[in-house]
Amino acid sequence: MHPVALFGAAGYTGVELIKLLSGHPDVRLACAASDGHAGRRVEDLTGRASDLVFVSTEQARAIAADCEVALLAVPPDAAAALAPSLAARVIDLSHAHRATAGAVYGLASLFGGEVAGARLVANPGCYATSVITAAAPLVRHGLVDGDVVVSAGSGVTGAGRSSDEALSLGEMYGEVRAYKVLRHQHVPEIEAALARVGMTAATRVVLTTHLLPVARGIFATLTVRLARRAPTAELVELYRRDYAGDPTVRIARTAEEVSLRRIVGTNLCAVGVASDERHVIVTVAIDNLLKGAAGQAVENLNVMLGLPRTAGLEHLARHA
Amino acid sequence: MHPVALFGAAGYTGVELIKLLSGHPDVRLACAASDGHAGRRVEDLTGRASDLVFVSTEQARAIAADCEVALLAVPPDAAAALAPSLAARVIDLSHAHRATAGAVYGLASLFGGEVAGARLVANPGCYATSVITAAAPLVRHGLVDGDVVVSAGSGVTGAGRSSDEALSLGEMYGEVRAYKVLRHQHVPEIEAALARVGMTAATRVVLTTHLLPVARGIFATLTVRLARRAPTAELVELYRRDYAGDPTVRIARTAEEVSLRRIVGTNLCAVGVASDERHVIVTVAIDNLLKGAAGQAVENLNVMLGLPRTAGLEHLARHA
Amino acid sequence: MHPVALFGAAGYTGVELIKLLSGHPDVRLACAASDGHAGRRVEDLTGRASDLVFVSTEQARAIAADCEVALLAVPPDAAAALAPSLAARVIDLSHAHRATAGAVYGLASLFGGEVAGARLVANPGCYATSVITAAAPLVRHGLVDGDVVVSAGSGVTGAGRSSDEALSLGEMYGEVRAYKVLRHQHVPEIEAALARVGMTAATRVVLTTHLLPVARGIFATLTVRLARRAPTAELVELYRRDYAGDPTVRIARTAEEVSLRRIVGTNLCAVGVASDERHVIVTVAIDNLLKGAAGQAVENLNVMLGLPRTAGLEHLARHA
Amino acid sequence: MHPVALFGAAGYTGVELIKLLSGHPDVRLACAASDGHAGRRVEDLTGRASDLVFVSTEQARAIAADCEVALLAVPPDAAAALAPSLAARVIDLSHAHRATAGAVYGLASLFGGEVAGARLVANPGCYATSVITAAAPLVRHGLVDGDVVVSAGSGVTGAGRSSDEALSLGEMYGEVRAYKVLRHQHVPEIEAALARVGMTAATRVVLTTHLLPVARGIFATLTVRLARRAPTAELVELYRRDYAGDPTVRIARTAEEVSLRRIVGTNLCAVGVASDERHVIVTVAIDNLLKGAAGQAVENLNVMLGLPRTAGLEHLARHA
Repeated sequence: MHPVALFGAAGYTGVELIKLLSGHPDVRLACAASDGHAGRRVEDLTGRASDLVFVSTEQARAIAADCEVALLAVPPDAAAALAPSLAARVIDLSHAHRATAGAVYGLASLFGGEVAGARLVANPGCYATSVITAAAPLVRHGLVDGDVVVSAGSGVTGAGRSSDEALSLGEMYGEVRAYKVLRHQHVPEIEAALARVGMTAATRVVLTTHLLPVARGIFATLTVRLARRAPTAELVELYRRDYAGDPTVRIARTAEEVSLRRIVGTNLCAVGVASDERHVIVTVAIDNLLKGAAGQAVENLNVMLGLPRTAGLEHLARHA
Repeated sequence: MHPVALFGAAGYTGVELIKLLSGHPDVRLACAASDGHAGRRVEDLTGRASDLVFVSTEQARAIAADCEVALLAVPPDAAAALAPSLAARVIDLSHAHRATAGAVYGLASLFGGEVAGARLVANPGCYATSVITAAAPLVRHGLVDGDVVVSAGSGVTGAGRSSDEALSLGEMYGEVRAYKVLRHQHVPEIEAALARVGMTAATRVVLTTHLLPVARGIFATLTVRLARRAPTAELVELYRRDYAGDPTVRIARTAEEVSLRRIVGTNLCAVGVASDERHVIVTVAIDNLLKGAAGQAVENLNVMLGLPRTAGLEHLARHA
Repeated sequence: MHPVALFGAAGYTGVELIKLLSGHPDVRLACAASDGHAGRRVEDLTGRASDLVFVSTEQARAIAADCEVALLAVPPDAAAALAPSLAARVIDLSHAHRATAGAVYGLASLFGGEVAGARLVANPGCYATSVITAAAPLVRHGLVDGDVVVSAGSGVTGAGRSSDEALSLGEMYGEVRAYKVLRHQHVPEIEAALARVGMTAATRVVLTTHLLPVARGIFATLTVRLARRAPTAELVELYRRDYAGDPTVRIARTAEEVSLRRIVGTNLCAVGVASDERHVIVTVAIDNLLKGAAGQAVENLNVMLGLPRTAGLEHLARHA
Repeated sequence: MHPVALFGAAGYTGVELIKLLSGHPDVRLACAASDGHAGRRVEDLTGRASDLVFVSTEQARAIAADCEVALLAVPPDAAAALAPSLAARVIDLSHAHRATAGAVYGLASLFGGEVAGARLVANPGCYATSVITAAAPLVRHGLVDGDVVVSAGSGVTGAGRSSDEALSLGEMYGEVRAYKVLRHQHVPEIEAALARVGMTAATRVVLTTHLLPVARGIFATLTVRLARRAPTAELVELYRRDYAGDPTVRIARTAEEVSLRRIVGTNLCAVGVASDERHVIVTVAIDNLLKGAAGQAVENLNVMLGLPRTAGLEHLARHA
């Protein structure tokens, strides 16, 4: 059993990590740190049976000295301060290290090979995970003419555990609205990752993010003008080849088949594609807290520890 | 046009009052006070066209000197402090004066006659409005044997405009839970009102309140052991007679017909009733912000000003 | 009072028309036809007080002979068959006549001038209304370089009153999915309308529609590459000038300000705009059953009858 | 691996059974029958990876001849016809056999001892499971004076996979309504079970069921007049003793702590209790498709096969 330390254990992502790691066959959660909840039982926050008690960051730092990997589910500032001070290898779920030289960008489906030996893994953002996975085959095969236009929506847990009045059910019931229009922090992350599979400077990722009246999940729709004709069937085949053997990516038969409801609760990324003579539409859905955060972090953890990539994650696909 | 002052204008109830009063044919909203929003345009909060600008409590106090009635949609402490200092007649929507000698309990359907000449009207609580309206005929006609058991649920706006994390959509999605079990502050208010229509000390109102995953509305179910046999048809007829002529109470044909969705947005109170040989079930639904707060306050305002009770409210029933 | 006949009165749009027309100051609803509900009281379907009783299509046809205008809220086939047989002027809310020579396309904000004298008005589709309103200023002022990419979502009432299992709350809870990808029937309608304000053949409207887990409303996000630099402030000003005096279009201060929740229940179209150096994002929201159907039909009815365009609609903006 | 046959595999409960059984460590799902879906892949209905193909009832009947247990998730009529014709032992999830002599009532928490040797197990109804579990300790310890009043609500999947328009999201959004008032078919089942733990004829179970605007889960609130004073702490202790060792019942610290959201996705039954000098309130929540149907069926299956009662169910509590 590989010992692992968790910082930021009381946020939405932290709680998901506790659930995943406490059931992981080869990993032992050595500590769950939350300064706000230190001394309280994990069970009281999650409503699930657990013997864990939250510890302070200081206590966790000591315990982490004997851990193989530390998972940081804390805000970027805290992650930036914490990472260099830890002896353990680090998976940072914040965006603090996503553009840092020396950190490996842990999008396991594309760059998993670099993760194995990494000292510091930057776990991708939730929007970034969905958009990069959906766009990469088009980019790689030279099918993109012009921009990659993305309209994406997220459930409110994407904003983290929050007491923001704007996220109250009274305000969000029946609501849809855009946020961070033309200034979402995930765009550089997405463009950098797609550049690595061949995106040129002539292409921009134009992302509009929306808040949806659901608790969990990200659904994104990509619109791209095709560089050459490519019928739907050819594209489906191309996507299936590109992601053949990837245990976390499911290529749907149609763009309409991708369903947010069915993907929530799993660590899967569902992708659908459709084209006409000039354009291609790609739909993609993930659970923002699993494939978009905690689930992918466990994938990275597994790869770092030499375990099968989806160890401790398989049952999710069956039971969501 | 009768000038009216509004204090506590930026809460959920305050905003409803602004909407109602700004369209009222015989009333002029002279000021809308909110210390937190003073100087900002009402339109920015409500998203509706309006020339009103929020003023401070101090400014409103001066304006209220020339108003016929002041409406208080502020917390109980503030209402208790404010009411005696105002020259205008007062409708207090908080629970500060509901047990105060000298204040008239403004449940218009039952005690409307006393409201006309009142100097200080205590506007009933939302749960109280629904439960009293639903139970009064059973009490009045001696049909209650034992307790009045009530299970009631409210949308989250019942808790007011709030930044409580527990009310976030992330926490409330798919949620139902009880709160203030056996200690809800509306029980004494309900029991006092029902005592006035004949409830004896042998009967207790046992109310359990729940938070429902909707924005608006209260739905309550009453269970009462019958003092004598009374078939459903007799009870429907009895309820219809008791509320004949009341423009805000609708007796449904069946207990199943009462629908929260259809009542939200109206100033109506829908009541349904069903019995078997020993028990009667009464279902009741209101919009917590209208009949349960702002709408009933306008009824009381109308009665105080000698206007028809539903002046400025009729269109709601048509358009919800 | 102008007599008006309504066909297809029991669908979601029909019920909205009943609500609007029964409160209209200058119009009298002479009959409400629904073969499926003939003989039943309107009140039983809507839950609102009304003396109306549904009549059969045959009965309504006779009554319509004495009406000035007939509103058709029936499926396209029925509308195509019914329209020529009626002596009254016709507003067809289906898509049967949207590409018909001789029919006026009743997008009141753009083509209202032609509606006044029309014999047959084709009421625009809900997606079309939102997208055309949002895109027209960009097209008209030559700001579009390339395609107009639209990602739009609709509440489930957009599919009409339906017993489709896929629209049950059990299937739609927490769900988002795309439908009719690259083959939505509103695209030709949108492209034809935008061609009339100057869109060239080089530009395509690429629309992806989604089902959202809400009852009502359409929210659409448009992404367009700018033909020239145009800062946000310039675009906001341009939109405000283009829609100056239009009582149903509200230009928000930002793209983020457009809120589905606040627009539902109104006959407004809220539009927000934001740009960076190369792209413009336009967000737009309407109530699919009001501005996207029944409300706009009443606008057209008013214009045909020489009444103010928003007669019978003003209170909606205040009370949603 | 014990071979098991499933009939009625395409309904909501059937799909849950497929998910549970396909991950069960000691059971092999030999066939999944659905005449409506025969020949189609299970994966296409569930969206989850699975090699299973639905078979017809006739095919399944043949396969079931070699199975140890057959699970019937079909309507009561079909279950009544099917059960006698099968050689395998039977768990009937419908209400066909719940009052049948010779059938064991499979409420595992109370009557698990009889299940082990049973030839025919009647799996309890979802409301019955929650109400009996919540009321049994009060009944057993003589604390009930008068009736057991229950107000309960269910998510719409409780009505089964349905194309009923009344269950569409358009009708159910923001809705709460009562159904089968004073005539719910689970009442005799509840009263019979409680009679076995000591309920006398003087006590009636008065159940009002409601439809809630959520997909899954049952939340019930019981109100009982106490036969003697019993403080909350004493009752919590009494409930904990009564359910000590039961792996599926969780006694909360307070009645307010019971949360529908947290219980959905688990096979747990959460129970909370609170009292004042005269009354006790019990809150209870289950997932209607798991503890209320498929999950409890697997418990019964495990007991019949001599396996640990929660084999194949443990991970649910961790991951919901």
